[in-house]
Amino acid sequence: MANPAQYDLTYYQASIPVFIRALNNLSALLRKAVAFTAEQGIDESQWVNARLAPDMFSLARQVQSASDAAKSCAARLSGGEIPSFPDTETTFAQLQQRIDKTIAYLNSLPQDLFAHAGERPIVMNMRGTAKTFSGYDYLFRLALPNLFFHITTAYDILRNQGLAIGKSDYLGSFE
Amino acid sequence: MANPAQYDLTYYQASIPVFIRALNNLSALLRKAVAFTAEQGIDESQWVNARLAPDMFSLARQVQSASDAAKSCAARLSGGEIPSFPDTETTFAQLQQRIDKTIAYLNSLPQDLFAHAGERPIVMNMRGTAKTFSGYDYLFRLALPNLFFHITTAYDILRNQGLAIGKSDYLGSFE
Repeated sequence: MANPAQYDLTYYQASIPVFIRALNNLSALLRKAVAFTAEQGIDESQWVNARLAPDMFSLARQVQSASDAAKSCAARLSGGEIPSFPDTETTFAQLQQRIDKTIAYLNSLPQDLFAHAGERPIVMNMRGTAKTFSGYDYLFRLALPNLFFHITTAYDILRNQGLAIGKSDYLGSFE
Repeated sequence: MANPAQYDLTYYQASIPVFIRALNNLSALLRKAVAFTAEQGIDESQWVNARLAPDMFSLARQVQSASDAAKSCAARLSGGEIPSFPDTETTFAQLQQRIDKTIAYLNSLPQDLFAHAGERPIVMNMRGTAKTFSGYDYLFRLALPNLFFHITTAYDILRNQGLAIGKSDYLGSFE
């Protein structure tokens, strides 16, 4: 156990602003995809349904999963109900709306709700079995890796399709 | 600024164990790749050099970059020198050694060095210009997203090559 004097970070800081930044970067990637497919006359549904392996999730599903990782974690760490967003998006415009709704939800959560989130027991259904995580394990072993997984894989699908994006699009601006 | 009563997480907790877990999961992915390529008689250099787009990093470079993201962040947050590992790996065995060396370095750092890491000014060279980050911005906007980017892209390359792995290999065990 660390010396209490070292506690200088909150669960809010380690989650909500990180999620919002990652989702804004994802949104910017999708805007570039919209511009490129329009310019090249590529059917957008071809990209929305693109994947890296036949049994991997499509781009649309990666975006939905990134949204799910962020909103589920935000709700569980703050003790609220997870907002339900049906996975019905089939266009870039709809995927942007999904990201916007997710960010709006994240922005609506006051920091105070995240106090002591690390000790909050979080019960997850893992392959049919209920498993209890600490808030710490849930955030750092499940939610953050998951969020970055789906955003990176969305990026990788777009790169694989030929979109001219780079690491700085994924990381976002540092101005 | 959050209420100090909410500070219940350390910079050590938000970095080192997270990096070690992610690198151990990457190591397990590579072991599966070794077994599969051997079994199928695939030349391992084909996979080590595989990439998702002609101008993206190869699998080897993704592993090296994951190592770099972890060791650079660990050194900068703890105020130490970044250990230099030359990017010379060309086989799965060498990439495993690179991961092992990185984990050994991470394990060598005492938690105390990370106290107040959030306020440590971190000077980075961003496209030729020196830029100063807070420890917070550096960890959450650069290092963590970068680490997960390279590990996820390694996973995506392996999936794209046909390796039978799933999300649980990326996330690791919860037993």
